[in-house]
This record gives sequence, structure tokens and C-alpha cells, in this order.
Amino acid sequence: MTQKVLWSGRFQEIASDQTLTFTSSLSVDHRLARYDIIGSIAHARMLGEQGILPRADVDEILRGLKELLKDLDEGKLCFDEKLEDVHSNIEFLLVDRIGEAGGRLHTARSRNDQVATDFRMFLRDALLGIAGLITDLQLALIDRAAHNLDTVMPGFTHTQHAQPVTLAHHLMAHEARFQRDLERFLDCYQRLNLCPLGASALAGTTYPIDRDFTAKALGFDGPCANSMDAVSDRDFVVEFCSCCSLTMVHLSSLCEELVLWSSPEFGFAEVSDAFATGSSIMPQKKNPDVAELVRGRSSLAFGDLISILTLLKGLPLTYNRDLQEDKGIALRSSDTLAACLDITGQMVTSTTFRPEAMLAATEKGYLNATELADYLVAKGVPFRNAHEITGKAVRYAIEKDKRLEELSPQELRRFSNLIGADVKDILTVQSCVQRRTSFGGTSPQAVKAQINSAVAAVRAGIKEVDRKRSAISRALKKTVSAD
Amino acid sequence: MTQKVLWSGRFQEIASDQTLTFTSSLSVDHRLARYDIIGSIAHARMLGEQGILPRADVDEILRGLKELLKDLDEGKLCFDEKLEDVHSNIEFLLVDRIGEAGGRLHTARSRNDQVATDFRMFLRDALLGIAGLITDLQLALIDRAAHNLDTVMPGFTHTQHAQPVTLAHHLMAHEARFQRDLERFLDCYQRLNLCPLGASALAGTTYPIDRDFTAKALGFDGPCANSMDAVSDRDFVVEFCSCCSLTMVHLSSLCEELVLWSSPEFGFAEVSDAFATGSSIMPQKKNPDVAELVRGRSSLAFGDLISILTLLKGLPLTYNRDLQEDKGIALRSSDTLAACLDITGQMVTSTTFRPEAMLAATEKGYLNATELADYLVAKGVPFRNAHEITGKAVRYAIEKDKRLEELSPQELRRFSNLIGADVKDILTVQSCVQRRTSFGGTSPQAVKAQINSAVAAVRAGIKEVDRKRSAISRALKKTVSAD
Amino acid sequence: MTQKVLWSGRFQEIASDQTLTFTSSLSVDHRLARYDIIGSIAHARMLGEQGILPRADVDEILRGLKELLKDLDEGKLCFDEKLEDVHSNIEFLLVDRIGEAGGRLHTARSRNDQVATDFRMFLRDALLGIAGLITDLQLALIDRAAHNLDTVMPGFTHTQHAQPVTLAHHLMAHEARFQRDLERFLDCYQRLNLCPLGASALAGTTYPIDRDFTAKALGFDGPCANSMDAVSDRDFVVEFCSCCSLTMVHLSSLCEELVLWSSPEFGFAEVSDAFATGSSIMPQKKNPDVAELVRGRSSLAFGDLISILTLLKGLPLTYNRDLQEDKGIALRSSDTLAACLDITGQMVTSTTFRPEAMLAATEKGYLNATELADYLVAKGVPFRNAHEITGKAVRYAIEKDKRLEELSPQELRRFSNLIGADVKDILTVQSCVQRRTSFGGTSPQAVKAQINSAVAAVRAGIKEVDRKRSAISRALKKTVSAD
Amino acid sequence: MTQKVLWSGRFQEIASDQTLTFTSSLSVDHRLARYDIIGSIAHARMLGEQGILPRADVDEILRGLKELLKDLDEGKLCFDEKLEDVHSNIEFLLVDRIGEAGGRLHTARSRNDQVATDFRMFLRDALLGIAGLITDLQLALIDRAAHNLDTVMPGFTHTQHAQPVTLAHHLMAHEARFQRDLERFLDCYQRLNLCPLGASALAGTTYPIDRDFTAKALGFDGPCANSMDAVSDRDFVVEFCSCCSLTMVHLSSLCEELVLWSSPEFGFAEVSDAFATGSSIMPQKKNPDVAELVRGRSSLAFGDLISILTLLKGLPLTYNRDLQEDKGIALRSSDTLAACLDITGQMVTSTTFRPEAMLAATEKGYLNATELADYLVAKGVPFRNAHEITGKAVRYAIEKDKRLEELSPQELRRFSNLIGADVKDILTVQSCVQRRTSFGGTSPQAVKAQINSAVAAVRAGIKEVDRKRSAISRALKKTVSAD
Repeated sequence: MTQKVLWSGRFQEIASDQTLTFTSSLSVDHRLARYDIIGSIAHARMLGEQGILPRADVDEILRGLKELLKDLDEGKLCFDEKLEDVHSNIEFLLVDRIGEAGGRLHTARSRNDQVATDFRMFLRDALLGIAGLITDLQLALIDRAAHNLDTVMPGFTHTQHAQPVTLAHHLMAHEARFQRDLERFLDCYQRLNLCPLGASALAGTTYPIDRDFTAKALGFDGPCANSMDAVSDRDFVVEFCSCCSLTMVHLSSLCEELVLWSSPEFGFAEVSDAFATGSSIMPQKKNPDVAELVRGRSSLAFGDLISILTLLKGLPLTYNRDLQEDKGIALRSSDTLAACLDITGQMVTSTTFRPEAMLAATEKGYLNATELADYLVAKGVPFRNAHEITGKAVRYAIEKDKRLEELSPQELRRFSNLIGADVKDILTVQSCVQRRTSFGGTSPQAVKAQINSAVAAVRAGIKEVDRKRSAISRALKKTVSAD
Repeated sequence: MTQKVLWSGRFQEIASDQTLTFTSSLSVDHRLARYDIIGSIAHARMLGEQGILPRADVDEILRGLKELLKDLDEGKLCFDEKLEDVHSNIEFLLVDRIGEAGGRLHTARSRNDQVATDFRMFLRDALLGIAGLITDLQLALIDRAAHNLDTVMPGFTHTQHAQPVTLAHHLMAHEARFQRDLERFLDCYQRLNLCPLGASALAGTTYPIDRDFTAKALGFDGPCANSMDAVSDRDFVVEFCSCCSLTMVHLSSLCEELVLWSSPEFGFAEVSDAFATGSSIMPQKKNPDVAELVRGRSSLAFGDLISILTLLKGLPLTYNRDLQEDKGIALRSSDTLAACLDITGQMVTSTTFRPEAMLAATEKGYLNATELADYLVAKGVPFRNAHEITGKAVRYAIEKDKRLEELSPQELRRFSNLIGADVKDILTVQSCVQRRTSFGGTSPQAVKAQINSAVAAVRAGIKEVDRKRSAISRALKKTVSAD
Repeated sequence: MTQKVLWSGRFQEIASDQTLTFTSSLSVDHRLARYDIIGSIAHARMLGEQGILPRADVDEILRGLKELLKDLDEGKLCFDEKLEDVHSNIEFLLVDRIGEAGGRLHTARSRNDQVATDFRMFLRDALLGIAGLITDLQLALIDRAAHNLDTVMPGFTHTQHAQPVTLAHHLMAHEARFQRDLERFLDCYQRLNLCPLGASALAGTTYPIDRDFTAKALGFDGPCANSMDAVSDRDFVVEFCSCCSLTMVHLSSLCEELVLWSSPEFGFAEVSDAFATGSSIMPQKKNPDVAELVRGRSSLAFGDLISILTLLKGLPLTYNRDLQEDKGIALRSSDTLAACLDITGQMVTSTTFRPEAMLAATEKGYLNATELADYLVAKGVPFRNAHEITGKAVRYAIEKDKRLEELSPQELRRFSNLIGADVKDILTVQSCVQRRTSFGGTSPQAVKAQINSAVAAVRAGIKEVDRKRSAISRALKKTVSAD
Repeated sequence: MTQKVLWSGRFQEIASDQTLTFTSSLSVDHRLARYDIIGSIAHARMLGEQGILPRADVDEILRGLKELLKDLDEGKLCFDEKLEDVHSNIEFLLVDRIGEAGGRLHTARSRNDQVATDFRMFLRDALLGIAGLITDLQLALIDRAAHNLDTVMPGFTHTQHAQPVTLAHHLMAHEARFQRDLERFLDCYQRLNLCPLGASALAGTTYPIDRDFTAKALGFDGPCANSMDAVSDRDFVVEFCSCCSLTMVHLSSLCEELVLWSSPEFGFAEVSDAFATGSSIMPQKKNPDVAELVRGRSSLAFGDLISILTLLKGLPLTYNRDLQEDKGIALRSSDTLAACLDITGQMVTSTTFRPEAMLAATEKGYLNATELADYLVAKGVPFRNAHEITGKAVRYAIEKDKRLEELSPQELRRFSNLIGADVKDILTVQSCVQRRTSFGGTSPQAVKAQINSAVAAVRAGIKEVDRKRSAISRALKKTVSAD
């Protein structure tokens, strides 16, 4: 077979090697090969069902495509870089194997709708994989939280000690973020899982195709409604990249804390050796490299998001070649996020927390000052005044280099004679934590309730992801193996 | 009243004027004033219901707050720039008017949860306003489409003529994008409309508050589940800004076309004088400035999105002052998008299309070449070969400077002897359009079906937006006016 | 005077109020007023010199413009929002005052070149102001460094203790960044300070103008070389915003450290009360808000940079209305950076460092491990082996909960029998610091040398900035006051 | 040799395979191999010169490194993915070949300064390569301009016809942008070409190293001044990526025009078949794919810029693992830009312009309206009034569907009785162009002058780039081959 591009008829001169290299998308879209073949199988079946192609040709095409699929799965398919993209490669391989009938496959189809279909199939799998990894991470956080309901630590605002909280409460705050990420990805899925196939170049086709047939055969929820939109819509890439970026923000925040907590100054945690590396010159170093890299890689996701938005800005309808870059962008975001989620989940599970260091830290920073103010409020002082009185007491304590609970009743009474001996009890760190029983608060019972709700939500998420995966898998299996 | 900041007790020295200016958020958050007062009313009612504050104090507070609300609505409230933010301003004004009782309002509340609550109330209104403007624009597009079902124009890929389409089809491709935008905003709403109030500083509170009460009183769907998350979560801002950016992409694309179509080269459209401006030096100029500005302002939305993502990257829990910038970012994105949607909708309605220029354009660029290829396929030629034959015919026609339909049967038969006289009929532009009846295709009947579905979807969207608006409005009205 | 826009002749219908609001740039470009008037003065003088306008008209125009300038400086000039932009406003005010002669000012000029000229004049002043603030901050850092040559602290890599350094060395690392920022801004200035005036709409003009005259009169280094480029070039905005972003990165890094160092865990520094704020609920809090805000605002600069790049992407020549957004973007970046530089400089000067806490911290984290490795190397062990031996010694010390210098010679000799009693001397923190005398190293003498070079470079920078400022000032003064 | 990481001594457990994969930078930094070896040669020579290592060891090391360099150049070096990065790989290969002496190479060096040195060496070569490609593109533009001094076309503002210009003028406007790009890259080079080697981990070293020696041996302009800055400074990456982004903006603009000009509506240009591709379904299509891809890839550069800025934001001193991502970012930007510059240069050279279509286009859009206004000004009418009169004449002409020059003197005199028969001469397109002789204007003589200046500037640029390249090449050759 003399290989040539799919569209040479009208051209006098052929693109130079440099142009072929420049325009080739094979280095990225070879990962769509499986989807391309299955998409072609569905298309061929539909052409047969509708009588657009004769049965015999369809059978030949299906035989050829299945063979290619088998070879691909066995790692035996080789692609030619000269052939622009994976779609051309597969079509040429098919024609090479089955001859003329292969040339009929592209009937009522354009690369524009074909590429969009393959890409959506790829990305929905990537999305569901990510969703699964998010739930893994949520479970890892919940598990650590469940074992640390009574582990007291300083709660921070402004990286300053604010009020005592539990480690469980803190971990569940991270968990709540990933729950939202999960929901966002699943919302994105609704708009992603529609089938462009049959939109053809842009205007639909004169052949009596059945778009519901192919949509269903490929596990989509239905066909895209407007063919010009179908070939140019890349909203799903933007939305996917947005979800990736925000999830990476959440990972970066968690990892920032792992880095800080691993420092000698904090000493709240030690990541497992398996997620740290050393220094080529300083023998004592144990660096939380993995956490740093996850934090840093969030910046790649932002870059990808900006790239896809900028790519689309101001493009007229319909397909423009600029869109080719969409796949490289989305795949990088997807790969980065998946790897980061996976390794962070394991890091969360294997990190050693230091409850004694956390507890010791609560002695610094007057974390119980709010309690004193609330105590005064209970005695009838308006909160604003109670706040000011307490502020003065704290300043006094700082000058004396004492903790608030170390001040004597006499000393405290300088600031308000409403303060009695009973103040001692409410100033303990344990009391601070135990008494915050408001919904969503840090007391063990309140956090236990949060954990219960979270577990229910994660389980529902897992079920939803599994349901979608199975539906796709069933549809594709049937499409490939039918007859 | 000597004005001072809310937290001076512990400090020896007070922030300089420069610091107050630098840290002040009043220039942005004054727009939250209404929400802040209503939020305080709900909080005060709850403190009363739960017996945390005495009835008399609550009554005083409510009286004072309602008065402030009335003054605000009448434009009579003045804020002091020295007072950090709108929340401090309102608290000071309240204390100024009702005295000591005002100092009790901040019981069981922190600015951290207060700000987050106000901001969410503001943004959900902004979001619903935007959703309404999106549906307006959709209706404008649908209306123009419905009147142009038979207006034939070149369909473009790569800014080259591809196949003939109808203007209706083209406009509905834009409409489809905005339908997805609408859905995305409504998805965002689900995660946005939860109430942080009662999370207090970060850890919840020891007072027996009722978070369901305040959530309901303020029209929220429920309270945020984890108090540490509640005060630090800004996911809703990122998601909102993502939705804004993508909608701006769609507007930029529509406006790019208005700019191109207004050029002497295209001549497909002329924007109304009301949306154009002239030149200070060139008297003949009529520039589509509004369309250019909308296109350009998409870049502001991208900047905002990057800003909010970068702001959040790597921040440890919980509240950090960096977050203050969230409001400026979100408000700018919201204002920009709302203004652009509004004016684009009107521009779509008032633009004059030039059907005759569109039709004339279809004579250039061999838009009917696909028809010839399909004609050959119908005669049994595999599509790949038909494609190549047609490509050669096109090259021949270019050399002869003729349109494809101007070639004689003899000339055409040079490329394939399967070509008969009947080819003429299928090569007309009208035939190209009429015969593309596949689902989503460009034939008038197919586009009519798209319009019908779109109308139903927009109506459902409008209903949903109205339902949400009414629910909020009812809740707030009841909260403000109860007793 | 009936006010109208500058270009109404060709229009049948006038832009609606909404369009005027949407397209108006007055809220931003009113800040260009001074430059616009002076630019017009220079233009009028040139028109006179070249005989393009009669002397009498020029005199009238100059009188009118000087009057406007005086009124502006006295805050007496009012602009009308209906008039698109500041340029139209000033032209209308001029005509209103001096009548017909005012209508001759716009001869041989377009708003395209006029706007670009004003904007460049504004931005070069902003740039030089920023350059001055950078040198202020450098001097503040150098001053603190000069007083802390012997203040020992842990040097960090990966937020882990690496090797002991001095505070002076650390501060000078920050200073080095700002030196590069200064140089970048001055490089940017070279490309910024060229004059577009006389490019007219895009193609130059048929009038015998003298572009060198106006360029010189306005303090520019010369005229832009290609008129089409002159009206569309916004490279200087991108370059300016790039410089701003990178400087903000450096500020964010410095402020991140101020935040960390202010935490109870680090305790290395305490920002002055003047740059901190408290909490509305937690009376003990002293939050490094200013540092957090500076850190956060870096994200605004990135947003601006992305906005200006995206704005320009894919725009055809020459002027397009999208460009109007350039000023809002650049001014925001400029304002943000200037405010952040100013306040950070003051914060650096007034922050209290805690040398004792820094020194105490050097006892944690085996900062002297490299010394032991180097000690072994001096005894002939290849560095790789020395590194491994030391690593094992550190692990042993961790298990024993001892510092390296607390291990007995016997204990150390378990790992290598080359270790002698003399090892004690090189393991002290002081020795670690004192002995790092390599160029650029942390020893007091090496840092002293860095300070000396830095001072020379800053002084040269200040001189350069002053020279440029004076040259501009002289040129403009002469232009305004001549005759 | 049992391979292991460089820092295992202190660790009990070794990083998992997943961690090694996650943290490995080999897929990117293998491209630094050559620089790493040469950097090591320079370091080894210096260690010898300073007597830090014995001569014999140095000789062994040099022999080994030269062998590795030879093998690398011959494609015979294999790297092991398990070994973190290219630096470890090379060190292990060296030790494997020459034994113990190899273990001495890392004396007085850390990976922190080593990586930064290699990276700077790589990037300066990339930068100079890009600079060379920019000058190629400039020459291509200048060449096309020089042949089109009299090719008249519509000059555009707002994508509307504004005034006639020449194609030469238009092309030179693009050229001017690339001249600035060239200068920016060369400015960046000044800050890039400094040597971090000898900064060691962060604090310098106790060995008596000679940093000037290594800096000179590696072709740097000198050593970095502060060792903590030296290992953490990535300003050069940001500045490089900024330069890349802005150059990509310029390419995107040029390519946007190639896309527009290739459309049937414009028809101003046809890109060579070598830079176009066809359609898989539409046989007639000739798509300017290369131009579209260049335009689209600008978005990748913006993403990279945002990534590197975000990566650095808020990082404390000194080295943090996040920085590892810097190389992937910079290399992608560099590769993308180089490929786009190269292919765009060729596209510019081979594109066929259509002067007749350009000239025909000047008949639409009243490009000569400014001439009429200026004509009236010459008769004594103030420009503002002349502008309005002309605007009315244009409106009249539009209504009559005539060009301005087609109106009879009587018709024109309706708008001003100052209009005489002589107006005809100044209304021709040729006159419009010829008479714009102002500096920078569109008349052939003015553009010729622009070309002359541009040629001189490009030549100076080429010389400067060559000078730098030679200097580096000489230094490295000497370093590798000395003795």
C-alpha cells in the first residue's frame, strides 16, 4: 500500500515532512486508538442496519476492525508518523487488510465528528477513573479522621493559632472539598456523554443514518442536538480542565500542610519514607518531595485550563485546526491529576501524625481566649465588650509570658470582676473542643456526625461511578462482539 | 461614637492609615451591605429563638437593623473607609443607634462565617441574574433562527467554505452553547446555596445555636457540613468564575463572527448603529465596537479565573486573609459577564443579516463537492475513491475558473464515467441543504426540530430560575418582616 | 454646546445609553487627562512650527489647553460620561472654551495614535515610580541584612532544615531578586519610551508633520518606526505586566516567609502591630494580614498578565477596540504592585526578628550533617561514601534522640574510624557559617561583599531612575511653558 | 554496580516504584545530559586546579566524563528510569566506569546548583536558537515587503477598511514586533547567563572553590552573587516564558491574517500547498492548517507562563521540589516557539499574495474619506467640521450605492461648496498611499526607509547572536578538550 493522506486529490503539491511533523497529532491521539476502532465498529454496524452499505461490505469491515482491535490489545499495531493522526492510520491499516470495502467505512462520516466522538469516549473513561481515585482519597481521609476524633490540635486562621480543633475535624474539612470535586466531575459527565457521531463535517449528511443507534451502541446518553455545535463543541474539555484545576487546588492545600507539618518547626507529621527523598549533599535530609511535587503540579493544571480557554476564545464556527491541541491539554491534565490523587491518597494513609506535638502546640497562642470572652458573655457582658476585656487580659498574659489559664483569679479580675474561679474549667483545651457541639463543629460527637454523612455520600458516589462504568462497558462489549 | 476596629483590645499600636487603606475591602464589599443586614437579622432572630440573647435585646437589634436596611434602600447609609469593611461599618452603625444591645449581635458569630454567608447570598443573586440573561440571549438567537430557516449561507470549517448550511442552523449552534452554560450555572448553584453561618471562627461554637433556622431564614438549602470547611471554602467562586469564563468564550466566538461578518469582505451582516461607533479621523467608518469589546473582555474573565485559582493554591486551612480578594474577582467577572450578555442579546436582535450576500458567497469555494462524492458513492464507488475523484474534478474546475455545476457532463466524465446528467440536480445549493435531514442536520425540518427542543429547554430553565428567585425572595421577606 | 460624539456624521442612529456606558473608558482613562492635554500641547506646537495651522489658531489652542491643564491640576475639570473617553472630553471642553480653533487641533492626528501616546506617557511614569519603590525595598532589606551578619538561622530547602545560614544572607537572597526586577523594568522602559504620535489612524498622514519634534517635546527617545505598528503595538503593556507579575512573585515569597515566621511554630519574627490586624471573635489573635494580602494579590497580577496576552492573541492589524481594555489591566497591575512594594518595604523595616528563636531552631534537623561528610572527605573518603556514612550516623542520632554533636567520639566511630576528636569543632553552628567563605556563601565576610555589590547596584539604579525622571520632567515643563 | 539513589543512607525504607516514577524527571531532563557532563568536567577541572581533589582523581574523572560525552554524542548512553534524574544517571555511569574517583566528583557541589547550571546552559542555547529563528522570520517578512512596496491594499482598523496602505507597510508592521521580541530575548540572556555552580546546596561551601573558574569555563558571564538565590532563582524561566508568550502572540496575529486572507471572502493570499491540508470528507477543501495550529499553540505558551508563575508563587527560600517542573514548562515553551517560528518563516516566504484582489478590495469601504476631510481642511475648514461634512457625504454615497470618487462635483458640493473639481485627484487610492510620506507612513519612500532601518537592526541582531554562540562554543570546547 502506498501510504498517502486522506485528502490528496485536490492538491498539486504535498505537505512537506516538516509540515507533517508539525501538524501530526499522533504522539497524543494514539491513545484514542481503541476508541477509534470501536467507534468505527458502531458506525459500520449502523451503515449496515440502515442499508447504506451492503451487508457483505459491513461484514468485511467488522472483521477487519475486530482484527485491528485484537492486534491493538496485544500491542501489535504500529502507526506511521507520516499519517497525520490515529484515525488515518487505522483507516489505512483497515484498507490494507480488507481492501476496497475499507474505503467505504468513511461514508456519512467526517474526521470532525469521528475525532470528537473518540475524544469524548476517552475522556469519560478518564473522568470516571478520576472520580474513583477521588473516592479513594476521601475514604483515606475519613479513615484517618475516624481514628483521630479526640486528637486535639491548634486550629489555624492566618497561619496563627485560633481555637483548638481535632485532627478529625481538620481532615474532614479536606474531605468535604473532594466531595464537591466528585460532584462537579459527575455534573461534567452529563454534558460530556453525548455523541457527535453523524454530525459529519458540520452539516449532517444526506445518508439516512440513525444517530440514536450509534449513540446507544457507544454507551452515550444520546446524540448531540446540532451538528455544527457537535463538531466544534469543546465545552466538555474546558469543564473537565476546570474540575481538574480545582481538585488540584485542594490537593495543593493538603500537600502544603503536609510540607509544613513535616518541618522541624511544626513537627505535626512525618510522611512515610516511601514518599520522601533525600539530598545529594546533605545526608540528614528527609524531604517531603511527593507533597511538594503535587503542590507544584497544580500549576500545570492551571496552565492547561488557561490554554484550552485561550484556544477557544474568538474562534468562529465550526471546526478549526486550533482545536487539535485540545487533546494534549486534556490528557495532560487528566494524567497529572490521576497520578497526584493516587499518590496523595497513599500518602495520607501512611503518614504518621504526632498527637503529642499537636497537643503541645495548643499551649501556645492563647487558643482559649474566645472561651473567656464567651464566659463573660454568659455573665451578661455584650460580646463586643467581652472581646475587648479578653484582649487586654491576653496582652497582660503575653507581657507576663504566661498562658491564660496560668493567670490567677486575682489577675484575671483586674480586667473584669465578673470572672470567678469557675473560669478555670472552661479554659482547658479539652473543654474548648468538647463544648463545640454546634452542627459542623469540632466536638467529637459533631465530627462523628460529619463522618457518617460523608461515608454515605462517598458510597453513593462510588455506586454512581460504578453504574456508569458498567453501562459503558456493557454497551461497548455488545457493540464489539455482536453478531 | 469613637470609631475603632473590632479587635483593638490586644494591640498596643494601631494599624496605620496606609495599612487600613491597604487592607480595606469596603470599595468592593459595600455591595454586600444589604445581605449583611439581612444576615444579621436572621442571626439575631435565631439567638432569640434559642434563648441565647434576651428577647428585649433581640427586639432592639431587629429594630435597629430594619432601620439600617430602610436607610440603605433609601441611599442614606454612609460608610467609613477607616472601618475595614462593610461588616464593621454596619455593626458600628447599629451600636451607634441602639447602644449596648448592638454589642451582643456578634455572639456566636465570627466575621469568617458572616463574610462567607453574605458573599454567597450576593453571588447566588448574581448567578440567577446571569442565568436570566442567558435565557434572554437564547431566545434572541432562537427568534432570529426561526425566521431564517431557509437562509442559505456557506458553512465554515477552518474559515474556509465547507458545505452550505442555513443561518438558522448556524445561530442554533451558538444557542446550544448557551444552553450548556445555563445548566452549568445551575449546577454551580447547588453547591453555592449552602449556609456557612454558625461555623463561627472555624470550630463552631459553644452556644446552642440552630444552624438550620438561619439557613432556612436566608433561603439556603441547608447549612455547610464542616465548620472549618465552611469558613475557608471558596470553591463556589472558582466554579462561578469558570462558568463565567466559558460563557465569555461563547460570547467571544459569536462576536468574532459579528466582526468578521460586518467586514466589507464578508458583508453577511450589519450591526445596528446603536451598537457601533465611528472614527475620530475617518468619517466613513462604522466599527462594530461593542462586538469587539465583548470579544476582548473574555480575556478579563480568564484573568479572574486564574486569579482565584492562584489565590487558593497551596493555602493551608482555614481562613487566610488572601481570601479577601475573592469578592473583587467574582464581582468583576459577574459584572463583566452580565453586561456582555445583555448587550449581545440586543445586538443579536437588532443586527441586519444579508441573505443575498450569504447566498452569493455559496458560489465560491466548491461547497457542493461533498455532494459529488456522495453521488459517486451512491453509484457504488467506495467513499475514499469518490473523494479522490471529486478532488481532481475540483482542481480541474479551479484551473478553468468555473464552479462545479458549471462543468459540462463531458468534462465531469473525464473523472468518472459513472457521472450522469442527473448530477446537476444534486449540485444545487438548495439541494445540499434540503437533503441534509439527518438528526441535528442543516435541513429546515431538522433545524425546526432543534428549535422546538431548544425552546422547551429554555422555558424549563426560565422556570427553574424563577422558582429559585421566588424561594429566596419569600424567605428573606419573611425574615425581615416577621413578628 | 450640544455635546455629541466625535464621529456622528455618517450615522443615522446614535448609540444607545447602554452602548455608551458599555463602551466608555472614562472610568479608567480619566487618569490619562494630564498626559492628554500635554500631548495636545506638543501636537499643536508642532502643527504651528510646520505651518500646518495658522499661528493664531495655535495660540488660541495653546491658551485653551493650558487653561484646561490648570483647571485639572486644581481639580476643577469635570468630565461627561456620555463622551466615550477622556480624549473626547478634553476636545469638547477645548472647543467649548475657544471655539472653532479647537476644532483644528485634531488635524493630522487620530485617536489611535493619541491614545497610544497618552498611555505610554502614563505608564512610563508608573514604571519609574515602581522602580523607585523597588529600590526603597532593596535598601530596607540591605539595611536589615547589614545588622544581621552574625544572626544564625536554619537555612531551608524543601521547608526542611538544610544548613545553617545567616539572616543577612537570607535577606540578601530576596534582595537579589528585586535587583533583577529593577533591571527588567528598565529594559522594558527602552521599548516603552517611543512616541506613536503622528502615526495617525494607521497609515501616517499627508500633512508635513515633524514626528521628531513631538517625540522630543514629550520626553520620548524617538518616534515609533512603523505607523501601523505604532497604533496597534501593546507589547509594552505585556512586558510591563510580566515585570509586575514576577515582582509580585518575589513579594509573595517574602510575605509567605513573614507569615510562616510569625506563626507560633516558627516564632522567627513578629510583624509590627501597624501591619497586623486582629479577629472579630478571637481576642488573642494578631494576624499578619498585610503579608497575606500581598501574597494573595500576586494572583491579581497573574490574572492581569493573562488578560493582556489573551486580549492580543489572534488580533489582526491594526487597532481593534478590544485594545481598550489594555489600560484597565495595566493600571490595576501597576497600582497593585506599587501599593504592595510600598507597604512591604515598611513591613521589612519594622518587623522584629527573633535571633534567639532562630538560633534555637538550628539545634533541630541535623543542619551540620554536611560538615561531617566534608570532614570525612578531608580524610580521604570519596564524597559519595562520606555522604552515606553520615546518613547512617544521622539515623542513629535520630533513634537516640540526640543531636549529632551530642554523640560521643566512640559512637561516631561506629560509622567510620576516621572520625577523631577534632570533629567537635567543625560541628558547631558557628563553624558551619564562618567556614562557608566561598563567593556568594553565607559567612559574614562573603555576605558583606554581597552587600557592598548590592549597594552599588541599587545606587546605580536610583541614579538611572532619577535621570530618566528629570529628562521627562524637563521636556514636559518646556513644552507646556514655552513661549 | 547495584544502583541506588544518591541519598539512601538516612532512610529505613526506600521510595516505592510509584514514588520513583512520580518524582522522576528523566523524561524531561535527559535533554540536559550533554550540559551535565560538560558542567561536571568544568567542576572537576576546578577541583583539581584548587587542589581540592588530587590530580590523579581529576584525571580519572575527566577521562570518564569525556568517554561518557563521546558515548552520548554517538547515541550509546542509556539511562535508567529508576535513578530519579539525568544527574544521578551520569554520576552512576561514571562511578561504574572509573570506580572510586567518580565518587569524589560531587565534592563541593550539590544537585541544587548542578541542576540550575545545566538548565541555564540548556536554556541559553535554546534562546539563541530562537533568536536566530526570529531573525530568519524577520528577513522573510522584509523580503516580501521589499517586493511589495507598491502593492496597495485596504488598511484595517476594527476589521473594517480604514485607509489604503501597501502590503509592504503591513508586513513591516509585523516585522517590527519580531524586532522587539529579539531584543527582549537578548535582554533575558543577560540575566540568564550567570553561573550558579558553587552555590552548593544553598549556603556555599567550606572548600576553597573558584567560582570564576567554572563560570568562565562554561561560557557564563560570571557567577551568581548570592548562593541562596543561585539555587532558587527561576526568574530566567519566567522571563524566557514571557518572551515566548509574547512572540507567540505576534505569530498568532500574523497567522490569523493568513487564515482570514485565505478565506474565499478575502482572497488576499493563498498559502502554499506545503502548508495546507485537505478534508477527509470535503474534496474541495484546502485548509490553512499550519497557520491555525500556530495560532492555537499560542495558548500553550500562555499556559506555560501561568504555570511557571504559579509554581513560584509563595514559595519560601530556597530550593523546593516544586521547582522540578520548571524544565518541562520551559522546554515545552521553547520547542513550541521554535517549531512555530521556523514553519511560519517558510510559510511567509511561500505564500502567494493576490495584489489584484487587494486592490479590488480598496474600492469598498470608502477608504479615501479621510482624504476628502483633509481636502476640506486645506480649504480652511476645521478638522472637526470637515469630518462631519465628509461623514454626511459618505452616508449619501452609501445610499446611492456609489463610491466617493463616483459622486459628481455637484453632488459633493451639496455638502460643502468649497469642494472643487480638483478633489478627484486626491481621491484615488494611489494618491492616498503616495501622499502619506510622514515618518513611519505608508508611502513607498517611507516604507523603504523603514526597511533600511529594519535590515540594519536585524543584521546587528544576527551578529550579536553569533557572537554569543561563538563565545559559548569556544569556552566549552576548551573546557572539554583542554590538557
